[in-house]
Amino acid sequence: MPSFSRSLLARSLGLSSLCVSALLPVMSFAAQATPPNIIMVVGDGMGPVHTSAFRYFHDDPATPQVESTVFDRHFVGRSSTYPALSQGLVTDSAASGTALASGHKTYNGAIGLDNDQQPVESVLEYAKAVGKSTGLVVTSQINHATPASYVAHVPQRRMYNEIADSYFDAKIDDQFKVNVMLGGGWQYFIRDDRNLVEEFQQAGYQYIDSYAQLATIDNHNVLGLFADRGLPAALDEANPDRLKDMVQAAVSRLETNDKGFFLLVEGSQIDWASHANDVASTMAEMDDLHRALLWLETYVSQHPNTLVVVTADHNTGGMTMGERAGGYRWEPAYLRQLSASPRTIAVTHAEQTWEPASLNQQLGFTLTKEEMAVLQPAHKEGAKAFYQAIKQVVDQRTNTGWTTGGHTGVDVPVFAFGQGKEQFIGQMDNTDIAKKLFAMLGRAPENESNKP
Amino acid sequence: MPSFSRSLLARSLGLSSLCVSALLPVMSFAAQATPPNIIMVVGDGMGPVHTSAFRYFHDDPATPQVESTVFDRHFVGRSSTYPALSQGLVTDSAASGTALASGHKTYNGAIGLDNDQQPVESVLEYAKAVGKSTGLVVTSQINHATPASYVAHVPQRRMYNEIADSYFDAKIDDQFKVNVMLGGGWQYFIRDDRNLVEEFQQAGYQYIDSYAQLATIDNHNVLGLFADRGLPAALDEANPDRLKDMVQAAVSRLETNDKGFFLLVEGSQIDWASHANDVASTMAEMDDLHRALLWLETYVSQHPNTLVVVTADHNTGGMTMGERAGGYRWEPAYLRQLSASPRTIAVTHAEQTWEPASLNQQLGFTLTKEEMAVLQPAHKEGAKAFYQAIKQVVDQRTNTGWTTGGHTGVDVPVFAFGQGKEQFIGQMDNTDIAKKLFAMLGRAPENESNKP
Ligand SMILES: [Zn+2]
Ligand SMILES: [Zn+2]
Repeated sequence: MPSFSRSLLARSLGLSSLCVSALLPVMSFAAQATPPNIIMVVGDGMGPVHTSAFRYFHDDPATPQVESTVFDRHFVGRSSTYPALSQGLVTDSAASGTALASGHKTYNGAIGLDNDQQPVESVLEYAKAVGKSTGLVVTSQINHATPASYVAHVPQRRMYNEIADSYFDAKIDDQFKVNVMLGGGWQYFIRDDRNLVEEFQQAGYQYIDSYAQLATIDNHNVLGLFADRGLPAALDEANPDRLKDMVQAAVSRLETNDKGFFLLVEGSQIDWASHANDVASTMAEMDDLHRALLWLETYVSQHPNTLVVVTADHNTGGMTMGERAGGYRWEPAYLRQLSASPRTIAVTHAEQTWEPASLNQQLGFTLTKEEMAVLQPAHKEGAKAFYQAIKQVVDQRTNTGWTTGGHTGVDVPVFAFGQGKEQFIGQMDNTDIAKKLFAMLGRAPENESNKP
Repeated sequence: MPSFSRSLLARSLGLSSLCVSALLPVMSFAAQATPPNIIMVVGDGMGPVHTSAFRYFHDDPATPQVESTVFDRHFVGRSSTYPALSQGLVTDSAASGTALASGHKTYNGAIGLDNDQQPVESVLEYAKAVGKSTGLVVTSQINHATPASYVAHVPQRRMYNEIADSYFDAKIDDQFKVNVMLGGGWQYFIRDDRNLVEEFQQAGYQYIDSYAQLATIDNHNVLGLFADRGLPAALDEANPDRLKDMVQAAVSRLETNDKGFFLLVEGSQIDWASHANDVASTMAEMDDLHRALLWLETYVSQHPNTLVVVTADHNTGGMTMGERAGGYRWEPAYLRQLSASPRTIAVTHAEQTWEPASLNQQLGFTLTKEEMAVLQPAHKEGAKAFYQAIKQVVDQRTNTGWTTGGHTGVDVPVFAFGQGKEQFIGQMDNTDIAKKLFAMLGRAPENESNKP
C-alpha cells in the first residue's frame, strides 16, 4: 500500500486515537491479503508507445472525444526491465520473463535460472505448491520464452524440446505444474522422438486442437494446441476474440478450485509484429490483448477477489507516433480496415500478377500513384521485398517511426485491477512484480545475503 | 484520491461504523485541501525514454545495483498530450503548454487561447488572483512557449515581443502577473522599440543579469535575464546547478507570502537537445532538471504543505535505448565525460586544424580509427557537418536511436510529491493536470456545456 495513504490518515487527524489504532492494522492486513486468484498478463514487447498508440487506433472517430481504453482505466505504474547488469541494459524475453516469474535478474537467454544458472522458483510454481490451480494462455507456442519462464528451468530459450518435455516431466508434489495450457506448439509436443500429447492424454489430460473445442472442455487438466508453432497473426484469424475465448475457457476451469488459481496470459505476438516493424499487425495484436482484458475487467467486477496485473517484458521496435519526414501527425485510421496481415497480403500477392484493385481492397485504402511506384517494383522481387514495401507505405501513411528490429531499454507500463492493485502503484523493477506476487501468495522473502 | 483507498476501507471493515463515518469525511477533506504552495515542473520534450535513460546515465557504475533517481521515487502516472483533435494527435509546446496551464485543448501554436482563439485562464493567473505569489524559472527565454502559456494570450507562439510586452502590460487586479521571472530573453525585453527591463525597474522590480546576482535578491518582484535568448546548454555552463540555483532563489522570495505561491519551473532545453537528436546534451539537460528536483525534494521534506508536480508537454525526438544495427545494448558511460556540448565542440574545432587529441579530451573517450574516418571528412565541411558527425559517433558508441527531429505522440510520465500528490496517480490527460490544480486552488469547475 502506498505510504501516503497512511500518512494522509495520520495528518488528517483529528480522529480519536482509538479509531486510528483500530483502523491501521485492518488496512495493513487488507493490503497484504492474498487475492485467491492472480492473473498475470504479459504483452510481450508492449512498451509505452504501444499502449498510447493503441488508444488512438482504438478511438471511435465518430465521437468528439478520445475514448479511454482498458489500459487507460487501469494504468498504475511502470517497470524497469534491464537484465543482469553484466549483460548490459537491454533484455531479451527470457531474462525478463524469468525476472517477472521469479524475481531474479539473469542473463539474456536464461529460462527459470538465475545468473549463476541455478533454478529459481516461479510464482506459478509457488501457487501450485500451495494448492492453487494454474494455467498458461498464450498466442505463441506454449513453450516460448515468456510462458517457459514460469514453468521450466533450462539454460537457453531455444531448447524448445527440453522445455516441452519438462512441462510433462517436472512435477510439484507429484502433480503436473500446469493444469490448463492453451496456445501453439504441435511441432514441439508431437515429435518423432516423443509424443507429449499422447503422454498428457494418458495422464488424464483432455487434448483439444481447434478453437471450436474450447467450448467442449470438461476436464480440470487441459492441453490445447492450435498451431504448429505460434498461432496465426491476429489479423489472419477469422475470430477477433481468439485470445479472449482462450482466457475465458481457462478461467472457467481454473475457478473451480476452492483455493483459487494462478493464470499467465500472454499477448505474445505484439513482440513479433514489432520486431517486424509492422504497425498494422502490432495494433491488431494489441487489440487481441485488449479484448481479452475487457473480458477480464468484467470478470473481476463480478469476482473482486481476483487480481489482474498487466505489464510487458520489454519494449520492442522503438516504434514512435511521428517520423522524421512526416510532420506532427500520426494517423491510425489507415490501420483499421486491413483484411489480412501485411505479411499474408504480401505472400498471396507475390504469387499472383500485379493487382492493385485487390490490394486496395485488402489494405482498406486506395493507393496513390506514388505508393504504387513503391509497391510495383517490389512486387516483382517477391514476397519478402513486397512485405517490406507494404510496411513502408503503411508507415508513411500513418507517419510511424521505428529505430530497431530488436528490443530497447525503456521502462514498460504496469496496469492492475482487482484485489491488491494498489501494490503496483508507482515505479518498480520487473523483479519487484514477482516479489509482490510472492508476498501476496504468502512466501517469505528470499534473503539475498544468504545466497552463495 | 484514488477510489480504491476508500473501497479498501469499506471492504476491510470490521471497524466500528462510528470510526468509519468519522474517518471518511476527514480523508476526503485532506485529499481535497489546497497545498499553499504549488510548484509545476515541465521537462519540455521529456518522454518516457528520457526518464528511463536518465536512470542509467545517472547510475553509479561503482555499485552493483542501479541507483534510483528522483524521477523513480516520485513516478505516479502518465498523461496523454494530443492537441485539439482537428490538429491531429501530435502536439507542439504551445498547445500542450496551454493545456497544462489552462485545461483547454487548442491548436498548435496557440498561447493561452482555446481552439476558438478565446483567452483561457491559467493556474498561475488564478493563483495570483487569489493572493498567491507567482514565479517562472526556465532555461529558455522566459517568453518561450511553455512559460508564455501560463501568462500570455496570443494567437501564435512566435509573437515573442507581444508576449514579452504582455508580461508588463497585462495585470490582474492592478498587479503584475508574475513576481519572479528567471531565465533568458534580453533580445525580447531590451529592444529598440521598447525597454521592458527599464519599465519593470521603474515599476519596482529588481533586475539582475548574472547568476552571481541570484544571491543578492532582496525584492519580492524580480526580473532575472541571463542570456539573449535561451540560457547556454547545460554542458556549456560552468555551474552544473544553474537551474537549481534559480529555483532556490525564486522559492526563497516566493515563500514569504503567507498565502503561498505558484511557481512554474521548466527544463526547457531537454526539448532542444532532443530536436537536435543530441543524446549527450539531452542527458545533461535531464541532469540539470534532476538537480533542481533533488533540491525541491529536500524543500518539500521540510515544507510538506507544498505540492510538486513534474511532467512533460510532449515527447521529442523518438529517442530509443537501442538502435537497429547495434544489438541489445545501451551504453551511457560514453555520455558522462564530455567537457562541452557536442555543438560547442563542433564549432570550436571547425575553426581550428584537425586535432584528434583535443577532441578525445573534450569527448571524454578515445576515438577509434573508424570513428576518425567519420569525423575527419566532416571536419573539413564545417561546423554543421562536424556536429552531425559527432552525434553519429556518440549514437553508435551508446547505441542510441532517433526517429524524428520533431515531436511524437506518446504519453508522458507524471511525477508528484508533497501534499496532494495522490491526486496524480494513474492515467490522465494534460488538461486534467490543470483541472486538478484549479480544483486544489478552489476554482469551481468550468461547465463545458455552457460554452458558446
Ligand atoms: Zn522480442
Ligand atoms: Zn519541441
